[in-house]
Amino acid sequence: MFSLRRPPAHRLSRLFATSAARSGRAVVYAVNGDPATVLRVRSVPALPPPPAGTLNLQVLLAPINPADLNVVEGVYPSKPRADDAVHLPTHSVSDPLDTGTVWVGGNEGVARVSAVGPGVSGLGVGDWVILTRPQAGTWAAERAVAAADVARVPDAEALTEAQAATLTVNPPTAYNMLSEFIDLAPGDWVVQNGANSAVGQAVIQIAKARGLNTLNLVRHRPEIDELKQRLHALGATQVLTYDELADKSVRDKIKAWTGSKAIRLGLNCVGGKDTALMARLLGADAHLVSYGAMAKQPLSLPTSLFIFKNLKSHGFWQTRWYSMKSAEERAQLMQTLVNLIKENKLDTPAHEVLTISAAQTDEEATEKLQEAMVAMSEGRYGKKLLLKIE
Amino acid sequence: MFSLRRPPAHRLSRLFATSAARSGRAVVYAVNGDPATVLRVRSVPALPPPPAGTLNLQVLLAPINPADLNVVEGVYPSKPRADDAVHLPTHSVSDPLDTGTVWVGGNEGVARVSAVGPGVSGLGVGDWVILTRPQAGTWAAERAVAAADVARVPDAEALTEAQAATLTVNPPTAYNMLSEFIDLAPGDWVVQNGANSAVGQAVIQIAKARGLNTLNLVRHRPEIDELKQRLHALGATQVLTYDELADKSVRDKIKAWTGSKAIRLGLNCVGGKDTALMARLLGADAHLVSYGAMAKQPLSLPTSLFIFKNLKSHGFWQTRWYSMKSAEERAQLMQTLVNLIKENKLDTPAHEVLTISAAQTDEEATEKLQEAMVAMSEGRYGKKLLLKIE
Repeated sequence: MFSLRRPPAHRLSRLFATSAARSGRAVVYAVNGDPATVLRVRSVPALPPPPAGTLNLQVLLAPINPADLNVVEGVYPSKPRADDAVHLPTHSVSDPLDTGTVWVGGNEGVARVSAVGPGVSGLGVGDWVILTRPQAGTWAAERAVAAADVARVPDAEALTEAQAATLTVNPPTAYNMLSEFIDLAPGDWVVQNGANSAVGQAVIQIAKARGLNTLNLVRHRPEIDELKQRLHALGATQVLTYDELADKSVRDKIKAWTGSKAIRLGLNCVGGKDTALMARLLGADAHLVSYGAMAKQPLSLPTSLFIFKNLKSHGFWQTRWYSMKSAEERAQLMQTLVNLIKENKLDTPAHEVLTISAAQTDEEATEKLQEAMVAMSEGRYGKKLLLKIE
Repeated sequence: MFSLRRPPAHRLSRLFATSAARSGRAVVYAVNGDPATVLRVRSVPALPPPPAGTLNLQVLLAPINPADLNVVEGVYPSKPRADDAVHLPTHSVSDPLDTGTVWVGGNEGVARVSAVGPGVSGLGVGDWVILTRPQAGTWAAERAVAAADVARVPDAEALTEAQAATLTVNPPTAYNMLSEFIDLAPGDWVVQNGANSAVGQAVIQIAKARGLNTLNLVRHRPEIDELKQRLHALGATQVLTYDELADKSVRDKIKAWTGSKAIRLGLNCVGGKDTALMARLLGADAHLVSYGAMAKQPLSLPTSLFIFKNLKSHGFWQTRWYSMKSAEERAQLMQTLVNLIKENKLDTPAHEVLTISAAQTDEEATEKLQEAMVAMSEGRYGKKLLLKIE
């Protein structure tokens, strides 16, 4: 991986020539590096009619997930394939990243089938689909894909674009962490940190739907009461800040809440030393499952928890889950999640749509996108960002 | 738990009265605290003939394991039972620890059956046994125990006292860690730190007997070449210091050794940040098993190993293993280990015998024992210490 310095915004306009006859656009990168520097909005040629076994898709809405930025940076273990590269006409010899061979960013999103190639069965124009192959590139108005690389969204008519666009990463992560490591029965407790993350919110809702209790840990913030209310409204049983957890008297409170029932599943997206406080809440023979590392510090746990309380520490990666499971199992999971959405038991986390408008030039759109990337890297988005390319 | 200051050695003699008619002695403590302060050698009355269902034992040799000192300190999760307390006549009103109600230290050791109570079958005078109930107290010349709390040492005639006395903690820990977490086939690799610990030496020998390769990590020391030779003589495939491991070029060396075969089992008794270096040597879907924390720092591992390489971190505690298994399974494990000893595939680690001589008074013996405890706490014993009460 290597990184480029971001050119000052006022110089960006000189790096791009205006595209006269674009038919769609895509958010692309030619090299790995800081997303605020290497991402470009580029006009791309119209797709030809789909060859045999393939589809043309119109992407409706695609999340910009933190992991997607790690892919752009080149530090994520899951990468696009070499043959996912898109070859574009170069516009500007003065833009070192306008190399003509680029990758489209994005891993998740919902698309509408716009054309079906010969020999494709079970999918028709107008169907909503998601891409099942990781890192295939969803940040584009249109994509041409192998029919084998998509799955039809079940009951799409019942879903909003935002619900369908965010269906394949966070909700299945939450669902699987609640079911793959330990059998939980209604009334059992689960503890999680980073509880207001997108996965955390899905955990709260899916746990609630299963009759499980959740003890949710969040950072203190000025509007903590509002956040607690919001998580309670989603179905959180209890919410504590890490500061509240550090107070020794809280142990008695938690014992009263749980009726001294051992908590045997902990979900971690924070890491560092603070996670040890959460791990100490777990009873004997418990499982700690990590799916993120927001503190950017190693997971640090007392060895005694492993030896004397038989704690087991695992990781969970939805990409790996998909790679281990059959198409039928993947479809079954999606149906389960869609059913929860239809029953109003699972909703999309708070989000904001970043629109790349047809009225903007590539240069204007790139500048807007790069500003959003800077804001995201500085943690100024509290909400999930969804990309809409008009 | 509470801790007492150690009285100066020259005052100890005033704290004890000489026992005129002792029939045996024991190493006891009346309160939890620093072993160098709270442990006493006390003369104890002769045992009466054993009641029904019980045995009298003559303890031949008993290790002083680090965990035993943690029990004395009161910081170990496994503790003696209340009814294990021994009631002794008090000798000295000026010794605050001469309270009359004391616990005998020690968890491991070999004893000879000296008398058999009515209704006990399968055990006879002269049999060698080990105590199967944790923390029953082995640091004594004699003990009276329930027959159900002992197991006969198989093929005792083929074993030395030291081999039998150290049979129940370290070798089974090594054996079970090599078999309970992942199926290993001959030629597979295992990596371990603290490789010159008693468990580490057993791991090397048992792995060698199974045709497994070991990559052994040890601290650098002046006599490192000698240590490496000693571990190689036990059967170690490769030995590296942590300093050598920190050098990036070692990765290629390890790849050449293993033929790029993934290492899927790591054994940890160190903890802290250095263990991450070892964990990074593990391939996908590996297991890291911790059985000690010599660095006295939390186990600190990159979360990415859990998420993207599917690392699983466990603990192993032989006491728990015994509590989960039947008497038959425990006997089978002991037979397996005795067979390895008889085949000269497993030997006792380097050790030193601390003898409490019949010629010493209780005061003299206590002073000698407390000096040994100070030396042990300062890490001045490189060898395992075995207690012999004449």
